[in-house]
Amino acid sequence: MKVVVGSPGTWSGLLLRTGQCAFAGASIAVMLSAYGFSNYTAFCYLIASMGLQTLWSFGLLCLDVFALKSKRDLHNPLLISLFVVGDWVTATLSLAAACSSAGVLVLFMRDVGFCRKYPQLSCGRFETSISMAFVTWFLVAKSSLAMFWILASV
Amino acid sequence: MKVVVGSPGTWSGLLLRTGQCAFAGASIAVMLSAYGFSNYTAFCYLIASMGLQTLWSFGLLCLDVFALKSKRDLHNPLLISLFVVGDWVTATLSLAAACSSAGVLVLFMRDVGFCRKYPQLSCGRFETSISMAFVTWFLVAKSSLAMFWILASV
Repeated sequence: MKVVVGSPGTWSGLLLRTGQCAFAGASIAVMLSAYGFSNYTAFCYLIASMGLQTLWSFGLLCLDVFALKSKRDLHNPLLISLFVVGDWVTATLSLAAACSSAGVLVLFMRDVGFCRKYPQLSCGRFETSISMAFVTWFLVAKSSLAMFWILASV
Repeated sequence: MKVVVGSPGTWSGLLLRTGQCAFAGASIAVMLSAYGFSNYTAFCYLIASMGLQTLWSFGLLCLDVFALKSKRDLHNPLLISLFVVGDWVTATLSLAAACSSAGVLVLFMRDVGFCRKYPQLSCGRFETSISMAFVTWFLVAKSSLAMFWILASV
């Protein structure tokens, strides 16, 4: 099996997983601190999706730490298939959540001008949280492409 | 090179491309026929993204027809790399457009109740157009996974 950047059980893989957890967690924290997010389905969905992403990435982060400490090789077709499916599902859900929230935010900022009309709405925080969700998606996409590449080249 | 369902220059590939063109075109047509779509950035972006998808899929459809007629083999690493990049970019843009429009529609239907308050807003047509965009994304995702699989297994 090929070893590519972001493979499970390597330092680059561990770094990617840490980044995913950190950005997903920060996205949730910023969204939770924004006033009035709970009135909008898209923003609640972003929190749910980032929560799932944090759990999944944290699980794989622990596995990477274990593999690096015990010098185990995680390049097993069954394990990699499981990682591929999990990474693809969470990456798609993260992108969907980030995009639907971005759609609503653009509506508020440009189309109906809610952000100007209602300054108590935390548009700045919504924006930060959504940007972090996009970074999370980008990191998960990197991981999932690496996993798929490993699986396909078995 | 492996031949999988959805490979370029095969009947299954041609069928997938035809489906992509048909659903993307129908999504544009339904959105254009909906009253008031042009006031919302997300819906305009959906039209732009589906337009790009139609162009790309139509180009590959023509190539498939040519390959099937002249019995040419399109399994060339350079060509497949080009298809992979194009398919990934258009698939990501299609999913982003469908999700951002879906986020706005859910806001209209559930969160602020615009669809009940303003019956002249064509919420039913928005819904149909967005559903078709999701079907298009699903078909492009199938193509792009097949392409990536072929490329990785060279």
